Amino acid sequence: LLKLKIRVSRNKLLLIATVVLGLALAFAGLFMYLEGVDFFTAFYWAIITMATIGYGDIIPQTEAGRIVAMIAAVAGISTFTALVSILAEYFISSSLRRMTGMH
Amino acid sequence: LLKLKIRVSRNKLLLIATVVLGLALAFAGLFMYLEGVDFFTAFYWAIITMATIGYGDIIPQTEAGRIVAMIAAVAGISTFTALVSILAEYFISSSLRRMTGMH
Amino acid sequence: LLKLKIRVSRNKLLLIATVVLGLALAFAGLFMYLEGVDFFTAFYWAIITMATIGYGDIIPQTEAGRIVAMIAAVAGISTFTALVSILAEYFISSSLRRMTGMH
Amino acid sequence: LLKLKIRVSRNKLLLIATVVLGLALAFAGLFMYLEGVDFFTAFYWAIITMATIGYGDIIPQTEAGRIVAMIAAVAGISTFTALVSILAEYFISSSLRRMTGMH
Ligand SMILES: [K+]
Ligand SMILES: [K+]
Repeated sequence: LLKLKIRVSRNKLLLIATVVLGLALAFAGLFMYLEGVDFFTAFYWAIITMATIGYGDIIPQTEAGRIVAMIAAVAGISTFTALVSILAEYFISSSLRRMTGMH
Repeated sequence: LLKLKIRVSRNKLLLIATVVLGLALAFAGLFMYLEGVDFFTAFYWAIITMATIGYGDIIPQTEAGRIVAMIAAVAGISTFTALVSILAEYFISSSLRRMTGMH
Repeated sequence: LLKLKIRVSRNKLLLIATVVLGLALAFAGLFMYLEGVDFFTAFYWAIITMATIGYGDIIPQTEAGRIVAMIAAVAGISTFTALVSILAEYFISSSLRRMTGMH
Repeated sequence: LLKLKIRVSRNKLLLIATVVLGLALAFAGLFMYLEGVDFFTAFYWAIITMATIGYGDIIPQTEAGRIVAMIAAVAGISTFTALVSILAEYFISSSLRRMTGMH
C-alpha cells in the first residue's frame, strides 16, 4: 500500500509538472502571437507570470494580451495550489500512516 | 456521504470563485473611480494585484488608490488562502476516506 | 470541545493578524527612517512587499533598505504560511470531527 | 514520541532553511557572473525573486540570466511549498495527537 501510495503521488507530481509546462507553452504561444515578441521572451514572461513574480520587464500591451495575462495569473495560482495540495496530501498520508501504525 | 462531501466541496469552490470575482469587480470599480482609468484597465489591475503578480504597469497614484491596493492585497491573499484550504480539506477528506476504508 | 477549538482558532487568527500588522508597522518605520520617505508611503511599501506583490513603484535605494526588504519578504511569506497553516488546521479539525463523529 | 516528532519537525525546518539559503547563494553567484553585478545586488535579486516579490528594479538582461531567473522562480515556489507542507504536517500531527488523545 505504501509503495502504491508513493507511486500515485509521484505520478500526480509528474502530471502537475506536465500541466504547468503545457500551460506555460500555450500562454507563451498566445503571447508571442498577440504581442509580437520572440518565443523565448514569451516563455520567460509566462513562467515569471505563472510563478506570480511579475517583474514588469515584459508586460502585455494589447487588450487581448492582458486577457491572456489574467488567465495565466489564475492558471498559475491554480496549478501552484494543486501542487501544494498534492504535497500536503502526500505528507498527511505518511503522517497518518505513522500515527495509525500502518507501515 | 461521499457524493454529499464532493457536492459540498464543489459548492465551496463555486462560492470562493464568486467571492474572488465579486471582490475583483468591487476593487476595479473603486480603482476606476479613484484613479481615473477605464474599467478594463482597472479590472486587469485588480486581477494582477489579487494574484500577487503586481507587474507595476498600472499602479495607484492617489492615497485612496493605495489604500484600495493594500486592501486588495490582503483580500487576494485571504481568498487564495481560503481556496488552498478548501482544496486541502477536499484532499484530506478523500485521503482519510481511503485510509479508514469508508468508500 | 468544539466551541473551545473554534475559540482557540479565532485567537490564533487574531494573534497572526496582530503579528502581521506589527511587522508591517516595524518595517515601515525602518524603511521611512532609512529611505527618507513619509510613513504612509513606507507602510504602503511594507504591505505591498509582505503580500509579495512588489509593484516596484517604491523600492529601497540604500543597502540597509534592501536588507529590510529581504527581511520583510521572508517575514511576509512566513506569516502568510502561518496563516495558511492555522486555516488548514482549522479545516482539518472540523473535517476530522465530522469523520470520527465527534460532534 | 511527541518530543521526537517536534525534534524531527525542527530538523526539517532547519534543513529547508539551509536549502533556501544555499539556493539563494547559488542563484546569486550565477546572476553575478552572468549579469555583471556585485554579489550583494545579486543576492538581493535572488531573495526578491525566490520570495516571488519581483520588484523589477534588478532584472536579467541576458538569455542565460533569464534562464537562471526562471529556475529561481520554480525553486523559490518549490522550497516555499515544502516549507508550507512541513508546517502543515507539524500542525496536523499535533492536531491528530490532540484528537486521538495521544499526549
Ligand atoms: K509579485
Ligand atoms: K512584482
